[in-house]
Amino acid sequence: MQILDGKTLGKEIQEEIRLEVEKLSKKPHLAVILVGDNPASKIYVNTKNKTCERLGINSTVITLPENTTEDELKLKIKTLNEDSDVNAILVQLPLPEHINTANCIKEISPIKDVDGFTPENLGAVICGKQPYAYPCTPFGIITLLKRNNIEISGKHAVVIGRSNIVGKPLSLMLLKENATVTMCHSKTKNLKEITKTADILVSATGNRIITKDMVKKDAIVIDVGIIRNKEGKLEGDVYFDEVKEVASYITPVPGGVGPMTIAALMKNTFELFLMQNK
Amino acid sequence: MQILDGKTLGKEIQEEIRLEVEKLSKKPHLAVILVGDNPASKIYVNTKNKTCERLGINSTVITLPENTTEDELKLKIKTLNEDSDVNAILVQLPLPEHINTANCIKEISPIKDVDGFTPENLGAVICGKQPYAYPCTPFGIITLLKRNNIEISGKHAVVIGRSNIVGKPLSLMLLKENATVTMCHSKTKNLKEITKTADILVSATGNRIITKDMVKKDAIVIDVGIIRNKEGKLEGDVYFDEVKEVASYITPVPGGVGPMTIAALMKNTFELFLMQNK
Repeated sequence: MQILDGKTLGKEIQEEIRLEVEKLSKKPHLAVILVGDNPASKIYVNTKNKTCERLGINSTVITLPENTTEDELKLKIKTLNEDSDVNAILVQLPLPEHINTANCIKEISPIKDVDGFTPENLGAVICGKQPYAYPCTPFGIITLLKRNNIEISGKHAVVIGRSNIVGKPLSLMLLKENATVTMCHSKTKNLKEITKTADILVSATGNRIITKDMVKKDAIVIDVGIIRNKEGKLEGDVYFDEVKEVASYITPVPGGVGPMTIAALMKNTFELFLMQNK
Repeated sequence: MQILDGKTLGKEIQEEIRLEVEKLSKKPHLAVILVGDNPASKIYVNTKNKTCERLGINSTVITLPENTTEDELKLKIKTLNEDSDVNAILVQLPLPEHINTANCIKEISPIKDVDGFTPENLGAVICGKQPYAYPCTPFGIITLLKRNNIEISGKHAVVIGRSNIVGKPLSLMLLKENATVTMCHSKTKNLKEITKTADILVSATGNRIITKDMVKKDAIVIDVGIIRNKEGKLEGDVYFDEVKEVASYITPVPGGVGPMTIAALMKNTFELFLMQNK
């Protein structure tokens, strides 16, 4: 059994980007919009900000009050779209309930859409085309597999969870890599029967559900869940200690998919900058 | 075993649309662009044209020569986008090889994209949102299941074939209906093991591959293939005569998915008209 160490690989990728950025006269610039006072969002935004700093990427955090209207947020996005000094725009989710998330995301110029969430970029993913940016978590997972020389083609990948930002784009990206892909979710019957057939098992539910008896021998297990348990410790969807006994590769939580997502965000910011400065 | 009779249902749906159109003072208008001399395309376009006529829908076929440039085609699409008399635009595929299909499809205004192929409409499908129009074949298949009162939720659907116009959007639409969905293709290993687990089996490969031993007892079998055999007869992916012995429902070829696709095209034309005339 081998641990898929996202922490170390994430740092490697960050270092690669830092060295590339160092060579540039003009620096990439990521603008993050944070609406309201969600404490978890503040932590995420802070982490992104600090990572940018370490890599020599300029970053701006625009904080807007909780009672910001949808039109005000859209106007802010528009201003950033038109600002040639900004290369990448990230709207931190979740937005306050009175704002329609999809309508605001749609406003982001696809070539600055660092999260890969606009219809144009997701539309490219479904067509098997290269979007300006892939959604960060799926992109991080594919990178983690590839950089560990794990063959995807011909494997049966089972993805649990069908969110727009992880499950669905990841399924389509695994499909593009020639995996046979099964998409499971809360309405799936006989989940265990299906997960037992997975060569690559990805769980992205936010619930502790994956036990040893659900995993085929030598499966590759990717855990996207992040749950804070009663003792305040971070855990994933997967019962790591028991599942690692049957898996051939497994991601830990923390230190697996999380750092790969941040690395993917930095990579996207850098690549969008290059595209805009060709 | 019950035959899923797309021919009869397709006619029913056409008749429903015809009655609705009859009530309208202004009529919907479908514009079809046909580039070059592909004989199969000519037949398809002709069928669409005649169906429109029967339903009281205006239709225009714009034929362009084989040597039309990409820019000329885009300009034509632009003109139709701006023509308020045209509600629905269909670019008949395949296009000549010197034309980039994706680039041209992208030019169609999403609200006139009757085939549901633009990135904006496919992007909505991946997000589980309502596009202006769903791709016609998947839309026809979902309609065939629903109008026959076949429950999709909780079922395991296996879709063979991963095209942008059938396999991938259909998989996402079945997912939205709460099926567990497996996407298979030419690189899938142990295909039979997977198809044997399908409650709903959809084959869209254009090859005769589905034999009785690949189908679970009482499965619902949807055949998207259309192959002309040596005797000039139309056949599907499925060996109908033997598979019907194990299936609970099965579509024939011809008379299954084909007529449902045409009905979906007419439905889309009508719905786009309504949206534009709200």
